[in-house]
Amino acid sequence: MILDSVDFFYASMPDVTLEADGSQDALLVRVVTDDGHFGWGECEASPLTSIAAFVTPRSHGVCQPVSASVIGERLDSPADIARIAQLVARNSMDLLQAAHTWSGIEIALWDLLGTVREEPVWRLLGYSENHAKVPYASMLMGDTPQATLDRARAARENGFHAVKFGWGAYGTGTAAADADHVAAAREGLGGDAKLLIDAGQIWGSDVDAASARLDALEAAGATWLEEPFEPHAYVAHARLAERARTVGIAGGEGAHTVHMATNLIDFGRVSFIQVDAARIGGIGPAKTVADHAVRSGITYVNHTFTSHLALSASLQPYAGLADHRLCEYPVEPKQVALDLSTTHIRPDANGEIRAPDAPGLGIDVDLDGLAPYLRRVEISIDDEVVYASPRVASRVRDAV
Amino acid sequence: MILDSVDFFYASMPDVTLEADGSQDALLVRVVTDDGHFGWGECEASPLTSIAAFVTPRSHGVCQPVSASVIGERLDSPADIARIAQLVARNSMDLLQAAHTWSGIEIALWDLLGTVREEPVWRLLGYSENHAKVPYASMLMGDTPQATLDRARAARENGFHAVKFGWGAYGTGTAAADADHVAAAREGLGGDAKLLIDAGQIWGSDVDAASARLDALEAAGATWLEEPFEPHAYVAHARLAERARTVGIAGGEGAHTVHMATNLIDFGRVSFIQVDAARIGGIGPAKTVADHAVRSGITYVNHTFTSHLALSASLQPYAGLADHRLCEYPVEPKQVALDLSTTHIRPDANGEIRAPDAPGLGIDVDLDGLAPYLRRVEISIDDEVVYASPRVASRVRDAV
Repeated sequence: MILDSVDFFYASMPDVTLEADGSQDALLVRVVTDDGHFGWGECEASPLTSIAAFVTPRSHGVCQPVSASVIGERLDSPADIARIAQLVARNSMDLLQAAHTWSGIEIALWDLLGTVREEPVWRLLGYSENHAKVPYASMLMGDTPQATLDRARAARENGFHAVKFGWGAYGTGTAAADADHVAAAREGLGGDAKLLIDAGQIWGSDVDAASARLDALEAAGATWLEEPFEPHAYVAHARLAERARTVGIAGGEGAHTVHMATNLIDFGRVSFIQVDAARIGGIGPAKTVADHAVRSGITYVNHTFTSHLALSASLQPYAGLADHRLCEYPVEPKQVALDLSTTHIRPDANGEIRAPDAPGLGIDVDLDGLAPYLRRVEISIDDEVVYASPRVASRVRDAV
Repeated sequence: MILDSVDFFYASMPDVTLEADGSQDALLVRVVTDDGHFGWGECEASPLTSIAAFVTPRSHGVCQPVSASVIGERLDSPADIARIAQLVARNSMDLLQAAHTWSGIEIALWDLLGTVREEPVWRLLGYSENHAKVPYASMLMGDTPQATLDRARAARENGFHAVKFGWGAYGTGTAAADADHVAAAREGLGGDAKLLIDAGQIWGSDVDAASARLDALEAAGATWLEEPFEPHAYVAHARLAERARTVGIAGGEGAHTVHMATNLIDFGRVSFIQVDAARIGGIGPAKTVADHAVRSGITYVNHTFTSHLALSASLQPYAGLADHRLCEYPVEPKQVALDLSTTHIRPDANGEIRAPDAPGLGIDVDLDGLAPYLRRVEISIDDEVVYASPRVASRVRDAV
């Protein structure tokens, strides 16, 4: 098969707010081959910028648009996906956004190949089993400890055995105030659920500020402290990991290359590596990190905060790893993230989820459902249109 | 002063080729304050994508356009520049291209502040002296060893005491073929000039492939081997550095955060850290890396392959470091890179160059000269124009 076209569908809620909720917009990618097969993927964040990286005029030989390495290429096997990835890495070396744009395309290529071969992507990756994961609910820290406690209790009532709290005011005030929130979260969860805390890079690379939170985290039996620092601050990560006794340090969602994630393991000494397939270059690189996590004796976790298409993509790289059990699950995504597919990955009777046992990613994209949210982008240079969003006939656009 | 507006000027040669020559286009940035002061900066590579990152609709609270952290901010001191940099890092955390867009703006803020204070930027950075640098000529490796020899000889005749060869076929064939080129380069240069070799990431993270070139490099007395690997491949860099005896490993131009560069020093064990101020977040972060290089006992070098505005910006961070002598100098840039300023930084009678001893960056941008090269960009979303290039009256546009 030859890759004939790549279409981008930029969807968003009518109002995108300042909350730390990544499900407010989406950049969906459809790749179509010369013989009419197609696959779907999704890029993480800032749709306009990722579209621009696909169509931008070249600046020189190693700053070419992502399109230059994709359109017209042959796709017959997973090796072709890796080969095209190398082309993008080389030809778009100096185009920073290229990794995010390529991620969505790479995911679509796996979906396409799996669909054609009638195999789930996790089988194409070499796994023979598709193990159940424990979805954790990601929630914003409450405005007060009582609000945090109430949310924790509600998450337990909704069947979650693991809950993550973060952002909001966490890390911005005193260590004592943060300790109150962490204790409240544990109280709301009860003793047997996993408690995860996300600092959202709030301490930059200030090891002392992060260390001041460790006692409270360990008293509450927190499983991990996520993203205490900026993603490249390996020295700070390693120092904090040295000071921690029972709580693990987690991070990695910012990785846009395999090495960024493996460095966080090798030099940053994290215990949990969290990979967003829609940023790191897709499913192939994420699998490479999962292999490295296994070799290093640490735990792989997905990072996902958007649609069920992105969720399926993020599950594939570690579907076959029985001991890597936790899974980020978007509990209360915005409606656009739900409406973009008719298929959804729901917890089973045990409260567990799995990657779909279906060809490709196993998620049916619903262009009709998406239509009300679509944004029309047009980019012209010297009055020549270099990009225009594909037209989607919609029966429901007027409904929004 | 309040930052009132940021204008982007996207200029390019009529034909942008696939050669590894970064001077074929430019994204110039002008920042204007409420009291009418202005400064100029430049972003590295892929102008359309960097413009998109400035105007893109937000995806969520930490994926905001760069504009959200800049327009309306106060600028009275270097501390304000660092403060705005922190805002960008936080508010555009998930927008990968933001670092490149912000770099050009940050450079313009230093130029602006220096102009208002009538001080060169290197003084604002705390340096009391502005030391001469030895410019090295960057050239493509020839198609044959004889062509490489001829180029080396010509560079010496043009007064250069240091010459860098790279790209072309280097690293793509056998180690023996590469050795012939390196020996030819040394022969053309004579014994007393510095020889630098640039591999342009050609070996990915393959330490053995890179190691196979070390003997020839050391026999020719090469000062450094630049970018043998991808920028995040610290383990590979460190292993190669261990095997090298007299040739230093160089790298860092891909760094888009301070930590990426300091990690390459701390974990990659490079001997030369090469920073592009137009990628790493501007002059402030580049100075932070220079300080780290001094503490680490390794050598700071600029990376510049575009205009003399970018060259001045790249000299400021280490202008006061007497022992850090080498400087990348664009020897044969494309005409657009020369025409964008009336001021140029030329070697003196000793063949040395310095950062301008003039307010700000000391480079007069020539909008008239630039006019023939300007590209008009327009971006609309849902039929609303979110970006349109500023109009520049031109008396010469028709001449191209």
